[in-house]
Amino acid sequence: MQDFVFHNPTRIIFGDGVVDQVGEQCARFGKKALILAGQGSARRCGLLDRVEQRLSDAGVDYVTLEGVQPNPRLSHAREAVALAKREGVDLLLAVGGGSVIDEAKAVCSGALVDHDVWEFYKGRLPERSLPLLTVLTLAATGSEMNGGSILSNAETKEKLPFRNPLSFPRVSILEPALTLSVSHWQTSCGISDAFAHLMEVYCNSPDPRPLLQLELIEGLVRTIRDCAERLMQNLRDLDARREFMWAATLALNGLTAAGSGATPWPLHMMEHALSGITDVSHGAGLSALYPGWMRWRLQNNGERLEQRLARLGRNCFCITESNDALAALRCITEIEDWYRILGVPANLDEAGIPREQDTEVIQAAARDAVDWGLKEYSAQVLTAIFAAARASE
Amino acid sequence: MQDFVFHNPTRIIFGDGVVDQVGEQCARFGKKALILAGQGSARRCGLLDRVEQRLSDAGVDYVTLEGVQPNPRLSHAREAVALAKREGVDLLLAVGGGSVIDEAKAVCSGALVDHDVWEFYKGRLPERSLPLLTVLTLAATGSEMNGGSILSNAETKEKLPFRNPLSFPRVSILEPALTLSVSHWQTSCGISDAFAHLMEVYCNSPDPRPLLQLELIEGLVRTIRDCAERLMQNLRDLDARREFMWAATLALNGLTAAGSGATPWPLHMMEHALSGITDVSHGAGLSALYPGWMRWRLQNNGERLEQRLARLGRNCFCITESNDALAALRCITEIEDWYRILGVPANLDEAGIPREQDTEVIQAAARDAVDWGLKEYSAQVLTAIFAAARASE
Repeated sequence: MQDFVFHNPTRIIFGDGVVDQVGEQCARFGKKALILAGQGSARRCGLLDRVEQRLSDAGVDYVTLEGVQPNPRLSHAREAVALAKREGVDLLLAVGGGSVIDEAKAVCSGALVDHDVWEFYKGRLPERSLPLLTVLTLAATGSEMNGGSILSNAETKEKLPFRNPLSFPRVSILEPALTLSVSHWQTSCGISDAFAHLMEVYCNSPDPRPLLQLELIEGLVRTIRDCAERLMQNLRDLDARREFMWAATLALNGLTAAGSGATPWPLHMMEHALSGITDVSHGAGLSALYPGWMRWRLQNNGERLEQRLARLGRNCFCITESNDALAALRCITEIEDWYRILGVPANLDEAGIPREQDTEVIQAAARDAVDWGLKEYSAQVLTAIFAAARASE
Repeated sequence: MQDFVFHNPTRIIFGDGVVDQVGEQCARFGKKALILAGQGSARRCGLLDRVEQRLSDAGVDYVTLEGVQPNPRLSHAREAVALAKREGVDLLLAVGGGSVIDEAKAVCSGALVDHDVWEFYKGRLPERSLPLLTVLTLAATGSEMNGGSILSNAETKEKLPFRNPLSFPRVSILEPALTLSVSHWQTSCGISDAFAHLMEVYCNSPDPRPLLQLELIEGLVRTIRDCAERLMQNLRDLDARREFMWAATLALNGLTAAGSGATPWPLHMMEHALSGITDVSHGAGLSALYPGWMRWRLQNNGERLEQRLARLGRNCFCITESNDALAALRCITEIEDWYRILGVPANLDEAGIPREQDTEVIQAAARDAVDWGLKEYSAQVLTAIFAAARASE
């Protein structure tokens, strides 16, 4: 097990009806909130009215800005920063999924500086932040309990992350019933995203034997697969929605990373380049790349991955094969089959991404790779990976 | 899965040489520390000198009080409170295991009130607390990352807990190499304690199907059993010390409880009565009571426990029996065998506790049961449990 620092100060309030606590929770941190929300569903379903009413009841003034897109845009974040400054808000309330929360993190720090928020993503980390609270409406990214944020710059077609201890939400309100109406497609993309977060650590951690972390990850994978099976049968299975929501949060709140070592995240690096250019859904971009990457990695210094995938296959995908090499390959096939059951693409062709776009994506990924600490991922290497992520015939 | 609030603000600094950060960490929270330590081993091994030097280097003044006993005593806590007040310290630094940290939590709040610290344990919860930092020297109780504290009152022979959000350590420094010299007995008691924390949730949670929490607990049980096997062969196995230290912390930091429901903790209630009177080591008291309690519970509304133990046996104790009733009984036998391999008692006779003391312990437990929310545990019920916790012949 590797050395680590673990500090996650986010307060999680999880359960039925907990959105009704949003007013009193906001009042603990400020007097005027910028409520940030997505593209209309939170208003249509009545959630935003409910949140605004609770803030009013608690004596918290607010201004609301909707319109955050999936793969949230720098342009909208700039608009939100300007509004936050103009209105003099002293806290942010994100009502939405990972995109809304990610953008809110930019706004929390952007409202306190004179420079452009994009600089945070170019390496100039925030030094201050307004308090952020969240009401989660989509289980997927884990942003509700971590300090990470990702924005897309439509002008440069860059999609970049920053991570910052200041950016952890102070309070995240998780009311699983809010996710009962999430579509089949978004549910599946969320499942794929949470699974991918677990796999980045599981497949890439440097330790020969981090038993504890592998155990935690495998437990979460089994849980997510069990929830997925129930949700594919009935999207309104509240028990499955509850369990999946907490599992997705735990999949990227630092728990699995602590002690696993500073693992590189090659799949997210590649997927950000992919969705920065094609605007594919994050969860679908990840599922389209993962099996190909795994096959490529098995053939290139893949001893560690072979062991891991053999173990994953046996412990989470019902594989009984005793030969590691065969079990690892079988595990990849099982993951592909599972992706197809979920309805997310298992390769770039199934994702509907034209082959002609590969070159542009590969160039973008090769450019980003250095910043991600993934120097190995040259254009040549990425070309091989993207070829492996194409349908075999 | 049940509703929950999860908030754990403790910063964990884990790894080789991290004790050298203790000065700078203390300096973040205050100017003068009360260093609290145990019965001499921290001084003898040079740790206390190293800690004091780092505080001096960081410009943090300090006063040191040693002498905290296992099953920490109210009388010593009172002495520490008086010293903290007299010296005007503004932070506490606990250097030790769970006993030192537990007492330090009492002192942190006791230093800020005029009344006796025992009142915290009698239901008058603290409203303020000095910041607490810890340097952990024994993996067992999880006190380094939770808000719980337990003290023993030698006059009344009471051993009582309090839990408080103010009492979470701000920073806990986990340097596993410090535990290399922990004795076989203390190591085994620590393993038993961490296992017991997992079992209280696993055996008692009300949900018919909290899959995620069971998965996390089983992963921790397998990890702890794996570490135990390595440590019983070689107490100086640093990898096993590292993995066990973090596993023991996670076993009682709120992670397994979140979503498991408000579970009663009958074993700890009974063990506190037991060690309050007999001064048996906490881990040994737990192992002496657990198998008997499990057998008693199986025969008294034990359907839930039967399912759980059958599952635990199959997933963590290599049991292949398909009949739940038989698998559950077999699991208890496996736990007893495992306790004996560790060298901790598997019943009250093996713990060397004379049968004549049972009546006094049962009376104390029956008195405490109401405060613990365990009304079912009348003297009559406890008599049956303690009889089941005696050697069968």
